Amino acid sequence: MRIIIFGGAGFLGKKLARELLKKGELSVGGHAPRKITRLALFDNVAAVGLPADSRLEMVVGDIRDPARVRSLLEDPADVIFHLAAVVSGEAEKNFDLGMAVNLHATLQLLELCRNLPTRPVLVFASSCAVFGGELSDQIRDNTASMPRSSYGTQKAVADLLISDFSRRGFVDGRCLRLPTITVRPGKPNAATSSFVSSIIREPLQKQRAVCPVAPDTEVWILSPKRVTENFIHAAQLPADALGANRMINLPGITTSVAEMVRVLEAIAGPETTALIDWIPDPFIQSIVLTWPPHFEPTRALELGFHRDESMREIIEAFMEEELD
Amino acid sequence: MRIIIFGGAGFLGKKLARELLKKGELSVGGHAPRKITRLALFDNVAAVGLPADSRLEMVVGDIRDPARVRSLLEDPADVIFHLAAVVSGEAEKNFDLGMAVNLHATLQLLELCRNLPTRPVLVFASSCAVFGGELSDQIRDNTASMPRSSYGTQKAVADLLISDFSRRGFVDGRCLRLPTITVRPGKPNAATSSFVSSIIREPLQKQRAVCPVAPDTEVWILSPKRVTENFIHAAQLPADALGANRMINLPGITTSVAEMVRVLEAIAGPETTALIDWIPDPFIQSIVLTWPPHFEPTRALELGFHRDESMREIIEAFMEEELD
Repeated sequence: MRIIIFGGAGFLGKKLARELLKKGELSVGGHAPRKITRLALFDNVAAVGLPADSRLEMVVGDIRDPARVRSLLEDPADVIFHLAAVVSGEAEKNFDLGMAVNLHATLQLLELCRNLPTRPVLVFASSCAVFGGELSDQIRDNTASMPRSSYGTQKAVADLLISDFSRRGFVDGRCLRLPTITVRPGKPNAATSSFVSSIIREPLQKQRAVCPVAPDTEVWILSPKRVTENFIHAAQLPADALGANRMINLPGITTSVAEMVRVLEAIAGPETTALIDWIPDPFIQSIVLTWPPHFEPTRALELGFHRDESMREIIEAFMEEELD
Repeated sequence: MRIIIFGGAGFLGKKLARELLKKGELSVGGHAPRKITRLALFDNVAAVGLPADSRLEMVVGDIRDPARVRSLLEDPADVIFHLAAVVSGEAEKNFDLGMAVNLHATLQLLELCRNLPTRPVLVFASSCAVFGGELSDQIRDNTASMPRSSYGTQKAVADLLISDFSRRGFVDGRCLRLPTITVRPGKPNAATSSFVSSIIREPLQKQRAVCPVAPDTEVWILSPKRVTENFIHAAQLPADALGANRMINLPGITTSVAEMVRVLEAIAGPETTALIDWIPDPFIQSIVLTWPPHFEPTRALELGFHRDESMREIIEAFMEEELD
């Protein structure tokens, strides 16, 4: 069985690749387990830091280039994880780039999949940024997408198209609307949610971090470990369990920035949290404050997706997985 | 002031054109009224049956052709009504055509508008076909789009893109999700909802009509007269009244096919309704039965959009406007 991860050089792509290699087999769409014989990681830079493994294939290219993606798919894949994206802050600042990657390249990938002899399972990294508007609202499984960012709009459009392509039998899609993923390893990026990881990650490594929002700002979060498990779970769900509805609001936990810092202090002491500089950033606030932090992810929990137990568990998992 | 109607040769486009010419002026976006000096009707066939009027400009072209649309917009418009579409049944049978017209041409129109010096008011004919799924559901203003047709998907995608283009200040969009429009004049078309007009229109003209769904099938309907008023009302609403949310579920009335026929019989006698042949069509049923007939269009009513009073009013308006 062949698997492709678009966005395979990103930290989630690499984490997913490691898990798949370790697991060795996959029950695609609920069918009998099959060995993973090849795993291609496609990205615009080479994936570094992965173990040497004969199953791994690194492909560097631009997802906007139809010839490049077509050639990758000439050898059809059984499962495609589509994690490639221009992140939220970048898509807001560079509208054309966001449209080209998040919308047009996704649509082009769908059209190429439609022409494959296989009907691949497509697991798409959508986002809870498809929601917006009234912050007080509880987001339910049938709540409308009313994004307040171009990134959220592009993800919502992809969700709709993947659902229709699935209904027509061109692909077998599963759109996972991700909460904010924290604690991400590495460095800050152009995602407007980047600070949700920075305020934990940098202080734990004795570096200063900036928190651009007020302490009472609430966020809806999921750890890298749980989202990776959920990507794999999504690929293994039977299509029948999903039916016509291919959009899934993943479960997360609601916390406030103040609560995150309180738990960090309980784990690592006040000298650690003293490294956080509270410097409001109107641009980041204007987007983050449109992301609703309260969800009732009933369907996802019924379908067997998992969330973290607590903020403490999230921080401790980061320390164990990513720090010495 | 210049107005363009895309889909201007269709029956709704022509009805809207007649109303605009009669009205003579428009309070675009709630501003002071201005004279309508030019009204362009763009379509793939010439609009016939309109009165000679020096303000009218007929433009025949393909909305998928960027050069054609660009040249039409070289003389910028203040208001654009976008009614051009591949209808539901056709978009389901010819996927590529539906995507090309309903999605790609709309996106291309948005990109061309973005480059205009004006920021045109764009009134978009969206559809209640963006909703689907559980029939028992009451559709509220914040209910998710979960279309069960490619037509509904393409309309939902356009709604999202027009909203984001509006938020960014590229256009000033108003997406009206139309109930099933009845009674349409003319002949049956490839819309899966075509029968909702046929079963009234044909018998009233002593012709046979086919009803492809069961009598207890419920539909959510609006008359041509009211939807035309609502198009004009949408263009005149201040942007502030809409805020960030540019999607509006238009008000309609819920009725059953049996009730429509009962009212027709009360108006025109049993010899008229005897002209209806009840022949179930699985393809039409499979799509129509996914359109929810129960809505709570609270926001639209608050914004001043109108619905019909009764089925009797709808049939009588059709007889008065369209029959001798």
